[in-house]
This record gives sequence, structure tokens and C-alpha cells, in this order.
Amino acid sequence: VSEELADGAHAAPADAATQNVAREGVLELVFGEPDPALFPAAGLARACVRALRDGGRAALPYGANAGPPELRRRLAAHIAAAEARPIAGDDVVITGGSSQALDQILTLFTDPGDVVLVEDRTYSLALGMLRERPLRVVPIPMDNDGLDVTALEGALAALAAEGARPRLLYTVATFHNPTGVCLAAERRGRLVQIAAEHDVLIVEDDVYRDLSYDRPAPASLWSLAPDVVMRLGSFSKTLAPGLRVGWLTASPERLARFAHGGLLESGGCVSQFAASATAAYLADGYYDEHLAGLRTEYRRRRDALADSLTEHLPAGCGFALPGGGFFIWVTLPPGLSGAALLPVAERHGVSFLPAAACRPHGDEPALRLAFSLYPTDVLAEGARRLGRAVGAALAGA
Amino acid sequence: VSEELADGAHAAPADAATQNVAREGVLELVFGEPDPALFPAAGLARACVRALRDGGRAALPYGANAGPPELRRRLAAHIAAAEARPIAGDDVVITGGSSQALDQILTLFTDPGDVVLVEDRTYSLALGMLRERPLRVVPIPMDNDGLDVTALEGALAALAAEGARPRLLYTVATFHNPTGVCLAAERRGRLVQIAAEHDVLIVEDDVYRDLSYDRPAPASLWSLAPDVVMRLGSFSKTLAPGLRVGWLTASPERLARFAHGGLLESGGCVSQFAASATAAYLADGYYDEHLAGLRTEYRRRRDALADSLTEHLPAGCGFALPGGGFFIWVTLPPGLSGAALLPVAERHGVSFLPAAACRPHGDEPALRLAFSLYPTDVLAEGARRLGRAVGAALAGA
Repeated sequence: VSEELADGAHAAPADAATQNVAREGVLELVFGEPDPALFPAAGLARACVRALRDGGRAALPYGANAGPPELRRRLAAHIAAAEARPIAGDDVVITGGSSQALDQILTLFTDPGDVVLVEDRTYSLALGMLRERPLRVVPIPMDNDGLDVTALEGALAALAAEGARPRLLYTVATFHNPTGVCLAAERRGRLVQIAAEHDVLIVEDDVYRDLSYDRPAPASLWSLAPDVVMRLGSFSKTLAPGLRVGWLTASPERLARFAHGGLLESGGCVSQFAASATAAYLADGYYDEHLAGLRTEYRRRRDALADSLTEHLPAGCGFALPGGGFFIWVTLPPGLSGAALLPVAERHGVSFLPAAACRPHGDEPALRLAFSLYPTDVLAEGARRLGRAVGAALAGA
Repeated sequence: VSEELADGAHAAPADAATQNVAREGVLELVFGEPDPALFPAAGLARACVRALRDGGRAALPYGANAGPPELRRRLAAHIAAAEARPIAGDDVVITGGSSQALDQILTLFTDPGDVVLVEDRTYSLALGMLRERPLRVVPIPMDNDGLDVTALEGALAALAAEGARPRLLYTVATFHNPTGVCLAAERRGRLVQIAAEHDVLIVEDDVYRDLSYDRPAPASLWSLAPDVVMRLGSFSKTLAPGLRVGWLTASPERLARFAHGGLLESGGCVSQFAASATAAYLADGYYDEHLAGLRTEYRRRRDALADSLTEHLPAGCGFALPGGGFFIWVTLPPGLSGAALLPVAERHGVSFLPAAACRPHGDEPALRLAFSLYPTDVLAEGARRLGRAVGAALAGA
């Protein structure tokens, strides 16, 4: 079930130009993607033209393995300002989005049989990437303060006792996908300490950092301990996912290993042209303003969905307001699984990602709603439909 | 030695925007890349603007896993016309260049401990990708007619006897990198037969097919036996490598496995924006003319380098004129290895890729010259310098 559901609950038409295509009559709150109406298409078109103005002599050849120096410098400045950790362009490597970065990290930094630790709810499609490798995925409990670091210590002790090799922890510590929670500050310090003690590499999927709605995002794990963390950033949520441009911050040694892995040695920067265009877009100086606009709009959407959920969800359901990112995690009355609710909800014209798709093992009565793709009135209607669907499912049970 | 040499014989400056940067005073015949002067930058700029005209609603979201349908259709038409094998857009999947395609094929279609067969001279950076995986690389002898299929049969029998799992054969059958040779027609038929009998997947790196200078390229292995071959094509040599757009033709089952692997399920098409721009470029209808112009220009360069080599190489050296691609393979007098010659050549102001970088094991007195990057007069001067360097090395020996 989870494989199919992870793929957006249904297959897109064979001739679709994009990955996720809404079905007639269904509000697809399953799609965790930004709204195309918010893409700065005109600015990107100007940036492309500028990146090609000199005959494309920088943008069109094989790119430097680590990516366009101008983009790396601008990202370093952005990160240094946002995270109060001074870094230089050399400390940033450009990727083909966080998925491509995770894929290469698994190739370069794991061996067959290694244990990869994940939160017991996690990004469903990262699970897909982990499962197709000869790795063992071990879920660690999490709660409303994120990963349970005490449980992590217990798991590491148990794994050591059986001679297993815990190599890597994949975590979405900030505006977690799917639950929206943030790892508590005191747990962050403890987590990087544990990782250092046990020689576990933390892969911090940090793609929602710039989309905080109430207060600045908490300090990244990378900023606390750059020697034990590889942190994945992305323009997929803040500019456009089709660019396939992301970045990586990590220790100089790990960045060098990544940039001189076989894939980048062969093809150079994996997103050279789009990364060059992105650098030209950033050079225009409107990115901060664009980000501020996104925060305002997505905050509005979060609130619209939350308000309508409060109004329409039957008793026994619950959710917490996320401080950023794209998702609200809804808990259902005991006994009603998201997977069982989904067909009922789709008949009511709304979809979501059931908890089972986000869990390495097992299920729970919960589901993920994305508030990123639709305007506020559509989100409000989606919550109304979900409320009716839950009511119908409970009545039918 | 080979690791370092494979990386273009030297490290590019840290602030370089592109992967390969020529050193002052050195003609870098080591760089197997197209000449930026031949990139259709203006046409690509117009294509980018057009791909973004509708607000980027097709080009900027997560792309369909298999790539933009329009690009897949246009490629299918191009392939069907060139290879006399009717195919549809459904039979083509867009990749991030052949390197990215090979990387994913290794992730999805091999298991730890598998044997990967390669020609005993092969693409140096593919070797790098193979070596960082838990795979065993076994070289198969080749000669001036390409891979020795009788030797392949012997190797498969020997591997079977020791219980090894030969899973995949990586081959550059057409305008081979580094030697420039083409696999003979009668060997092609036999090769796909052997692969089918032994259940070995052929990965055909076919990126030079459109750059044939004397007569059309021979039938691809894929066109002979689509059920046993995954064929990698690319726009890196014919449009621009920085686009990172390539393609894959294979059986429907293997294409589906590739398109629904974890990486593409997560991020959609790995080069969505550049692939959309490429589709818009092809829609302009100038690509065939552009290709004809490239063939004319690169033929001229091949001939200029060959003529000058004939004039300037000392006795005991040799080479064969390649029918396409980017490379001339020069054999040296016995006892003079390319690796030993390289520092002498660099002092004379010319570089090349020594044979050792292209061989899984061992060395031989030979080297690869690329005629793709420089105009004819520079290539002629490069051959002159190489001749002087060989003379100096022989005199010093």
C-alpha cells in the first residue's frame, strides 16, 4: 500500500508534463509541492537570458563539480545571515535538489548492510530511496518535540549489542515532513553529541527552513555541529522544483568527497545551467522580498486550513499548528486509519497522505495535509470535505 | 595515478565556473568536451523564454518522472528517423545526462558483489563511478573491431565456474571512448545474443552517435535487441553539457523501473527545466541543421589533428582515423607509457589522457587526444608539440 500511496495516491496521466496532476473533482491535499502561481517565472526568464548572454560560456559547459562559484557565494551569504554562522562559498556544494543529494550521500557514505536511522514518521519518498538500497532502515520514536533522543540512545545501544553498523541518521528536524514539528532546542544539542559519540553521520533534510511563519526557524543541526552533519537545502520550495537546484553544507572533507564522487567527476555540476540561472536570479536582489512574500502567503494558507479544520473535524480528531513548512498532521479517532479513510475522502473530493506511507513499519490513525498548493478558499473547502469524510467513515464503522 | 589523471590531469582553480580550465600555455587535448563556441546559446535563450512564457506551469513544477512528454516525443522521432526503428515517446526516458543515467542504473540494477564487465579500455570516469560501488569490475579485451566477443564468452564461462554474478556490461560500442573504434556489425549481433543467453544487461553508452563524420553510425545495440540493452543518449556533445539532459531507451519494464526508482519518485524529472527548454529548442526545427554543422566542423578538426599527427609523430607511433566522436587514440613506441610521456608533453605545452586512466588494470604505450575543443590551427599545433615531446622522451630514454 505505502509504495502506491507515496506516489501521490495515484498515477499521473502518461502524457502529463508534471509529476502531480490533480484529478477532476478532487482537492489534492496529498501534493506536498509549492503553488506554481507563486513561481517567479518572469524573473527566472530574465535570469536565463542573462546567464546565456556571453554565449553561455559559464552556464553551458560542464560545470565545476561543486557548482557555479557565484551561486555558492550568494548562498553562503544567505546562510550566514540567516543562521549566524559565517561560512564562505567553499563551504557550499550545489546539488540537483535534496533528493539527488540524498541519493549521492547514500552512494558515497554507506556500505551494504549499514543501518540508517529515521524518525518513525518521515518523508515518504526518502523511505523509497532508502528501501531500494542494501541498507537496513531502523525507525526511532518521535513526539511533538521531534526525535526522541533518549530512544535514539537506547536504539544505538541495542544495535551495538547485536553488532549492527548504525551509519547515518536521516532527519527532518525543522518543520518536519510529515508532522510539521520542530526538534526542540535542547534535543538538538544532545542529538549532535550522540551522533558524534557514536560516529553516526546526520543527514539533515532542511528544505523548509526559509518558510517559517511565526518566528525564525531554530538553529540547524549543521550550524551546531558542522562536523557531524550534512545539511540539505533546496530552492524547490522557494523558487521552483523544476529547477532541480539544491545545496549541501557539511565539513570540508565530506564536501570534497561529495564533489569528487564519480557522478560529479563525470558530468560536473548536476544542475549547471539551472544553477547558473538561479545565480543570475539571486543577483537581481529580489530573493529576500520574494521569500517574505512566500512566508506571508503560506502563513495565510496554513491558517485558513487550520481554521477550517477546527471548524469541521469531528470530535476525536486533532492537530497542532506547524510553525513552518507545508504540512498539517491530523490525528484521527482511534481505530480509523488514514489508509482506510482515504477512499472515503476521495469520494468526498479530497485527498491526503495517510500515515502508513510515512512510516517505515506499521500504521497509526493519522494523515498529512499539504497547505502549499491551493489558495485559502480551496483549502477551507478541503477541510470541510475531510470533516464530512471522517464523519461518514465513523458512521459507517 | 589514474584517479588524478582522470580528473583532467590537474585540478581546476577553486573559483572556476566550469569543470575543465586550460592552463596557461598548455593545449589541453585531454579535455573530451565540446567547444563552447559551437553552443547554440542564442537559440537556447529563446527556448528558455518560451518555456517560461506561461508562467512556467509546465517547466517549473516537479516534472513527470520520465521527463517532459514533448521532449520524449521529439527524441522518439529523431531516433526513429536515425535508426530505422519506430519508437514512441513512451519508449524514451529523460535523464540528467549519461553519467546520471549510469549512476541510477547502477543503483537500481546491480547488487553488492555483482560483476560489471567493461572493455579493457573504457571511459575513465565511468570507471570512477563503478569503483566507488561494491561491484567487481572485469575488463574484456577489445581490438580495432571493438569488444572481443569470443573473449567475452570465455570470461563469462570462467566467471560462472567461480560462481560470480556477471550482471551488467558497460560498453561504448560506437565511436568508442577512448579509442574511437566501432564495434563491428557481425560482433554486434553476436554480443546481444550472448548477453541474452547469459542474462547480462548491456548498458550502451551511445553519446557520440549523432557525431559521425564519414558515414552513418552503425546500428545501436539497443536497436538490435531492446530487451537486453539500456542505451544512454545525451545532448551534452550536441547542444551543451551544462544542460545535463540525456535520455534512455530500453525495454518498457526497465524504463518503468528506472522512472519509478526512488530518486525520480522523489524529485521528478532530474533535469525538468533544462529538459523543457531543450524541448522548446527542438521545436524551433533547427536541430538537424545544427547537427549537420557540428559534423562538418568536428570532421574538419579530426582531419586537421590527424594530418598534423601524420606529419609530426616520430616513427613507431600510430593511430587510426575514427569515424566519429571526439577522440584519436595514439599508440606509442613500446616501452614509452602515456603516463611517463605526460609531464614531458606538458613541458612542451600539450596534454592528453594517458592509457592508464582508461584501463581498469595495467597500462600500455598509448594515449587519447580529443579534437573537440579547439579550432583546427590549434589542433595542428598540439600535434606538432606532441611529436616534439615524443621525440624528446625517446631521446631521453
